Amino acid sequence: MKKIERVCAITHILTEHPNRDYSLGTFAEAFGCARSSISEDIKLIRRSIEEGGLGYLETTAGVKGGVRYVPYITDAEAAKVLGGLKAAFEEPERVLGSGFLYTSDILFSPELAKGAARIFARHFASAEAEMVVTVETKGIGVALFTAELLDLPLAVLRRESRVSEGSTVSINYFSGSADRIQQMSLSKRAMKPGTRCIIIDDIMRGGGSIKGIEDMLAEFDASAVGIGVVVVAGGTGGKKIGNYLPLLLMSEDADKKLRMDINPELMAKGQRA
Amino acid sequence: MKKIERVCAITHILTEHPNRDYSLGTFAEAFGCARSSISEDIKLIRRSIEEGGLGYLETTAGVKGGVRYVPYITDAEAAKVLGGLKAAFEEPERVLGSGFLYTSDILFSPELAKGAARIFARHFASAEAEMVVTVETKGIGVALFTAELLDLPLAVLRRESRVSEGSTVSINYFSGSADRIQQMSLSKRAMKPGTRCIIIDDIMRGGGSIKGIEDMLAEFDASAVGIGVVVVAGGTGGKKIGNYLPLLLMSEDADKKLRMDINPELMAKGQRA
Repeated sequence: MKKIERVCAITHILTEHPNRDYSLGTFAEAFGCARSSISEDIKLIRRSIEEGGLGYLETTAGVKGGVRYVPYITDAEAAKVLGGLKAAFEEPERVLGSGFLYTSDILFSPELAKGAARIFARHFASAEAEMVVTVETKGIGVALFTAELLDLPLAVLRRESRVSEGSTVSINYFSGSADRIQQMSLSKRAMKPGTRCIIIDDIMRGGGSIKGIEDMLAEFDASAVGIGVVVVAGGTGGKKIGNYLPLLLMSEDADKKLRMDINPELMAKGQRA
Repeated sequence: MKKIERVCAITHILTEHPNRDYSLGTFAEAFGCARSSISEDIKLIRRSIEEGGLGYLETTAGVKGGVRYVPYITDAEAAKVLGGLKAAFEEPERVLGSGFLYTSDILFSPELAKGAARIFARHFASAEAEMVVTVETKGIGVALFTAELLDLPLAVLRRESRVSEGSTVSINYFSGSADRIQQMSLSKRAMKPGTRCIIIDDIMRGGGSIKGIEDMLAEFDASAVGIGVVVVAGGTGGKKIGNYLPLLLMSEDADKKLRMDINPELMAKGQRA
């Protein structure tokens, strides 16, 4: 196999398996060549991938030396994703009579949900999280892609406890948007004590449901090391939780017209926040 | 930029965006070289990717000629994925007292859910579907990855109709596993008349919930062009629906021990079913 074909094959394998460690020895064996050749290949692939702005390679040196592809987006790519999300959420036909927005198609669009997940994955890459957590239903897409990009498992809190969850922990919380007490539950099998979690949700109004997830994590002796929400409504202050990362800020202008702004914090970040 | 770096960059871009069409002209412009060079690169990339068994390239000739990466798995890769799923579902500690299985962690594992999705995407690649459909909650992961791999939107039927769905269509159906009438609803905005859909669900017992999804599609003048379920329980016959593709067949052996078998049909398929 020629060098160029090997480089192509390795690029493909790494890209298909984000955040998975491959030892140089594995590739050397698979392609029947010296470790030193693979090492040269990786240098070239790293340069090429990093110029594209979709990700970068992390390598560890030494006998057990390996490589992993970390999906990433540059500021320029992130701006494009955020612009696409903003444009989608701002479509006037989404506004429902009740002041709510129809968003299911956005949140389950593989392209838009994965775009949002890329930004969360970039932001929380160094949080040393062990699990991604969300509550059903509309945040599941973004949460799952975030988990995939960070190579972590995902736990989904349920609104009702189901027989197929086995014994569960349930908590009650006040949902401002539903204006009533709601319940969420999680299987006792879902999480080990001490787990470091990233919480992902689709839309935050008062912060009640994310506060609920935090309370649930406390029941498992687990903790939130990052909180990401796609949209925050009604300003970023006065919420039930403190430190969270919204992508879009939803407000109404003087004419009561819906307005979506890209979180300015996101644009001020360096390339490897 | 050297040829080898260009090949690496193009491989990376195609792999990151499955099923998206790229014109050769776009690459020629981006990399400042002739279309004929890109055309040579694509030939090489195609060979290299196809040998790896994770996907293949589809090209169209002519002035508007383009290329897309179609994720794929060979029979050997599919067997590995199915073996992994079988082993996960067979872990004895999953069996709950009630005869149900705890499966949330499998179905929301990015790796296992994406593996299952690869097999569905391969099977339904030529169904000319326009949308993937599931009902909340545990099938969403596999359905979303299937949608991503086929570059289709995903619609998620809800168990309750929610204010943020706008006006909805609701249907009642009999769930054998819950032994009662249940409801599912879908926003009127979610689907255009005539949409060709692939239905994905996690587990099928009597087939009631998939029959319910089919009834819902009929309400939208839409149709199912493929049905995939991760696990079918209690034999493949005597269900409320006919033509569906299970990955695993769940049964009990003489000692009432849980048994999972890989659907033998899947293994008999050619490499590009």
